[in-house]
Amino acid sequence: MQRYFVEQTARAGNTFTLSKDDAHHIKNVMRMDVGDEILVLDGTGLFRCRLEQLDKQTAVAELLEELPIETELPIHVTIAYALPKGDKVELVAQKATELGVSRLLVFESARSVSKWDAKKIPKKLERLQKISKEAAEQSYRAHLPTIEYVTYDEVLQCAADYTACLIAYEESAKEGEAAAFASTLSRLQSGDSLLVVIGPEGGLTETEVTRLTAGGFVPASLGRRILRTETAPLYVLSAVSYHFELKG
Amino acid sequence: MQRYFVEQTARAGNTFTLSKDDAHHIKNVMRMDVGDEILVLDGTGLFRCRLEQLDKQTAVAELLEELPIETELPIHVTIAYALPKGDKVELVAQKATELGVSRLLVFESARSVSKWDAKKIPKKLERLQKISKEAAEQSYRAHLPTIEYVTYDEVLQCAADYTACLIAYEESAKEGEAAAFASTLSRLQSGDSLLVVIGPEGGLTETEVTRLTAGGFVPASLGRRILRTETAPLYVLSAVSYHFELKG
Repeated sequence: MQRYFVEQTARAGNTFTLSKDDAHHIKNVMRMDVGDEILVLDGTGLFRCRLEQLDKQTAVAELLEELPIETELPIHVTIAYALPKGDKVELVAQKATELGVSRLLVFESARSVSKWDAKKIPKKLERLQKISKEAAEQSYRAHLPTIEYVTYDEVLQCAADYTACLIAYEESAKEGEAAAFASTLSRLQSGDSLLVVIGPEGGLTETEVTRLTAGGFVPASLGRRILRTETAPLYVLSAVSYHFELKG
Repeated sequence: MQRYFVEQTARAGNTFTLSKDDAHHIKNVMRMDVGDEILVLDGTGLFRCRLEQLDKQTAVAELLEELPIETELPIHVTIAYALPKGDKVELVAQKATELGVSRLLVFESARSVSKWDAKKIPKKLERLQKISKEAAEQSYRAHLPTIEYVTYDEVLQCAADYTACLIAYEESAKEGEAAAFASTLSRLQSGDSLLVVIGPEGGLTETEVTRLTAGGFVPASLGRRILRTETAPLYVLSAVSYHFELKG
């Protein structure tokens, strides 16, 4: 059944009012009609609904049943991703959403070649959120990831909010370190949270790594090969899914 | 140290003759000179070499020492990837190489929207091999993956060459199947081989899946979300790395 993410404000009692874009999609792309059923997700839950009203401007749907959420990772994963070159961050927003990320923090690292002009940040984030929303609908996510642009200091500061914090560190791979990631996951339980920092193309600087480790972040290898910056988040999330959803 | 993949025919005794492209890269991009050291990989091993001769046309390097190979997955993974839309197969060739794939088989599935014109296959494969070679050098791979265009029947036939065969099957995810992938990996040992079939955007047809399961392929879920066709190979390889390299 087709899924639509709506704002929490879209609900009044047992009625959801969907956006103009969604009304268009329901009517013209899906060619549905009043009486047909859709799934609505508002961040609080997943609801089976029946279309009560449908025109070019609005779609109104009546809540029939709340369904169990079965497509979210058992732990909350936040990826703090150093701004990469070009539009790789778009690939990461899409793929990380498919793979279950809860929150994506984009930050400017010392070696980030790209910079986001302050004026353009809202537009850039809006685009990433749109890509993420489409990926969430397509992959049957129940929650939309949040995407934020933060400073390196804010990444450090938010460590206290997480059960565990890691740095994906290629020097660890070169040194043969192979235990930190798996042993961290083994200590986490359903509902816990994990923050993983991933550096830019040139890697995090020594100063950045030192400040992170002083702040409780543990350097971890992601296998024996050197992954590109946009591949590392996908590895992390795939491994988390494998560990919690398939090995369980 | 910079790495160069060469054909096995590049070696004569303890001397490697590198290609014109590599000579250009060594001389003009890396700005190295006679006496500098490079790493040469010829598919049989990893060798530390010293440049003995270097001009626009040729680079000749003398073998100094064979080094241990530490960047290959402990098991051989082959991805049989149904031809996807657009240029997604290029992304998969790059990322699967980074993540350690041994062999990439591209095949036309019943629901593959794209088709490769027979005449264009050599050119298409050449391009994928180039992308894969660059990814292999960058990610410190010791072996170049092989990339082939095969028929669906050839995928079925080569099952006998593998220790285990899986189908990444989204219906398994929907049905809550969660054990097949991890239990298969748990049975594999260093040196074993795994073949994983991944369908196109519309999924494999029932007939295709039936023939695969009759041929010994086991349907397996890749977590609880529905992954896009180009994300599934990356999930498989990340999970294999996590299972064998990090969980030890």
